[in-house]
Amino acid sequence: MSVNESMRKLGEVRSVIRETFEYGNRRAAEIGRENVFDFSLGNPSVPAPAEVGNALRALLDGDPVALHGYTSAQGAEAARRAIADDLNRRFGEEIGIGKDDLYLTCGAAASLTVSLHALVEPGDEVVVIAPFFPEYRVFAEQAGAVVRVVPAEKTAFQIDFPALRAILNPKTKAIIVNSPNNPTGALLTPHTLQTLCYLLRERSAAYGRPIYLLSDEPYRELVYDPDAEVPYLTALYDHTLVCYSYSKSLSLPGERIGYIAVCNRMPERDAVYAAVCGAGRALGFVCAPSMMQAMLPRVLGVSGDLETYRRNRDLLYGSLCEMGFRCVRPDGAFYLFVESPEPDANAFCARAREYELLLVPSDSFGCEGYVRVSYCVSTEQIRRSLPAFERLAARYWG
Amino acid sequence: MSVNESMRKLGEVRSVIRETFEYGNRRAAEIGRENVFDFSLGNPSVPAPAEVGNALRALLDGDPVALHGYTSAQGAEAARRAIADDLNRRFGEEIGIGKDDLYLTCGAAASLTVSLHALVEPGDEVVVIAPFFPEYRVFAEQAGAVVRVVPAEKTAFQIDFPALRAILNPKTKAIIVNSPNNPTGALLTPHTLQTLCYLLRERSAAYGRPIYLLSDEPYRELVYDPDAEVPYLTALYDHTLVCYSYSKSLSLPGERIGYIAVCNRMPERDAVYAAVCGAGRALGFVCAPSMMQAMLPRVLGVSGDLETYRRNRDLLYGSLCEMGFRCVRPDGAFYLFVESPEPDANAFCARAREYELLLVPSDSFGCEGYVRVSYCVSTEQIRRSLPAFERLAARYWG
Repeated sequence: MSVNESMRKLGEVRSVIRETFEYGNRRAAEIGRENVFDFSLGNPSVPAPAEVGNALRALLDGDPVALHGYTSAQGAEAARRAIADDLNRRFGEEIGIGKDDLYLTCGAAASLTVSLHALVEPGDEVVVIAPFFPEYRVFAEQAGAVVRVVPAEKTAFQIDFPALRAILNPKTKAIIVNSPNNPTGALLTPHTLQTLCYLLRERSAAYGRPIYLLSDEPYRELVYDPDAEVPYLTALYDHTLVCYSYSKSLSLPGERIGYIAVCNRMPERDAVYAAVCGAGRALGFVCAPSMMQAMLPRVLGVSGDLETYRRNRDLLYGSLCEMGFRCVRPDGAFYLFVESPEPDANAFCARAREYELLLVPSDSFGCEGYVRVSYCVSTEQIRRSLPAFERLAARYWG
Repeated sequence: MSVNESMRKLGEVRSVIRETFEYGNRRAAEIGRENVFDFSLGNPSVPAPAEVGNALRALLDGDPVALHGYTSAQGAEAARRAIADDLNRRFGEEIGIGKDDLYLTCGAAASLTVSLHALVEPGDEVVVIAPFFPEYRVFAEQAGAVVRVVPAEKTAFQIDFPALRAILNPKTKAIIVNSPNNPTGALLTPHTLQTLCYLLRERSAAYGRPIYLLSDEPYRELVYDPDAEVPYLTALYDHTLVCYSYSKSLSLPGERIGYIAVCNRMPERDAVYAAVCGAGRALGFVCAPSMMQAMLPRVLGVSGDLETYRRNRDLLYGSLCEMGFRCVRPDGAFYLFVESPEPDANAFCARAREYELLLVPSDSFGCEGYVRVSYCVSTEQIRRSLPAFERLAARYWG
């Protein structure tokens, strides 16, 4: 062939999420947008907070050469300092993150691809925990890793530690965790995280080389229980890289702005940080969008309207449970992970489409028999969709 | 090692351009910014046109969910349509570029890394023409290619065709051209381009597989002769991918916005476009910054103040020639490529630093014995630097 075959396949095979979304658009053209109940995408429905627009307007009144110019590859110093100050204020100095441990990125996907390219050498393995965001596999394989999947722990979507322990081996370079989780909405408890870090420390010592913890946490601020604890993982484990994005907390998914935080307590911190810079360079990122970098110091601490998501969760979770659907109650993010009432989630999704309900089957998340329902939609859409869910339920146990 | 060694090295070895720039900042802190004559960086000194700020302000008054939301991976349809319309208006329909042949990117570097990953298979070779932007080697090698360098044609910085012909072989996947050129400012003439396309067509036929032409053209609009012809290469050669960026034409280098245009006359167009989409996905680009995409339809056809660059070129080129320096007169971009008056350009740059003149030696551009002088600075800086250049000249032939 004249092109790279694996790239061609990745471009031709649409993700099931994207395919469902596009079916929704076609269907909306046929029967009207208000009659299609699209729960497929994780595109925030809550507007960016007013502070974002105000900050951008103020910046546009300043010097355009400075505003739109290249920043250093690791990010403008003012942005890195503001982020480090904000993190230290919220999580303490013990997280081991100063301004020079941050590398600004074009969003969460870039945070992951850059981190993985920085760490992975040929033959390395990267561990993911089912259910997981399907692109983890794409990103890790592109970096040259073999992906190993820890099967889902289905009672509370924590971690099946015996299964994880059986998978770890001297070739394990990194493990990706995602809490709050896409697609389940589950939070990893402090106990789960401490057990994980204990195991990683013990196995790293046994193998004589570190296993890195990649914390993919775009949903960090989307947590509904005010008493819930979401530890900053560099405080628990030195060999941690935090992969963050402002996509969800500031409702800016299209703007591509996030960061990698490299814990400065890891002994080989300089090599890891250099490799992050090298990977960003080799992949062609140059710098994160400069106006978004300039905005950050003015909006840190602000977040979108979480109440809408909480209201959506309560309405949808309560209603579906009442109808007889089964689902672990999500503590964060904006997804419900609902058990399919028949073994094949694809068949269930096809049936749901008969009622104009667009759900995403769980197979590509590495965990069969569930559907993901994204509730980052208008509360009104959820309300109008409930009769359709009821008719769907009636097909199974009516 | 616990990290990827080649990424670590890429992150540790600063480019000489970046190193020179940072020396300039240290020196400015010591002796005052106005006493350091930094000609190292290609960061546009001309502000973004007023239309850019006006368009962004108007967009910020609209719906933030739409403005900051994910676009489709290939780019928002409105942006792609506007770009295609603009290109067809300027270069005719025969360029073979419609809205669905465009893939929006996070700037020129991303256009190149995505295109190279889309095309290159293990064992493939990518040809570059000296002198060339040093990151071409990084990008092509990261995509898995072996880089082959055509030595510089030093009389006019066109192409040494016998040397190129000797390098082409059945493993040649692509050749990168860059006109107007960084670092020489030279334009490839229509005759050079036609000869190149003829040779590529002939060799592709002989090898039974296409050699792709990657046209890296962030400087397309920075051409000083109003009669100069800058052909759109898809019109000349079907197997062309144009890698464009708005960094220089709109003075937005930090914002990361550009595109790849895949000529739709190539028979395997669908496979190439799919591979571009797949590569963007695998590298973690997700989409180009959404607000910049939304801005494009409002500003296409506008460009920064070219007159400042022309004035800078005339002043600096004329003055240096008068002093006895030798240099091919640049037709575009914002660089002078000056012959070093001693064989070792690094020694010449070290001597220039004694006069606070910060120049970039040409070795990393694949062509020894020159220095690159970036004149995207204030005209005032050029004027104040001239006595320093005179004293430097006096060291050699005073």
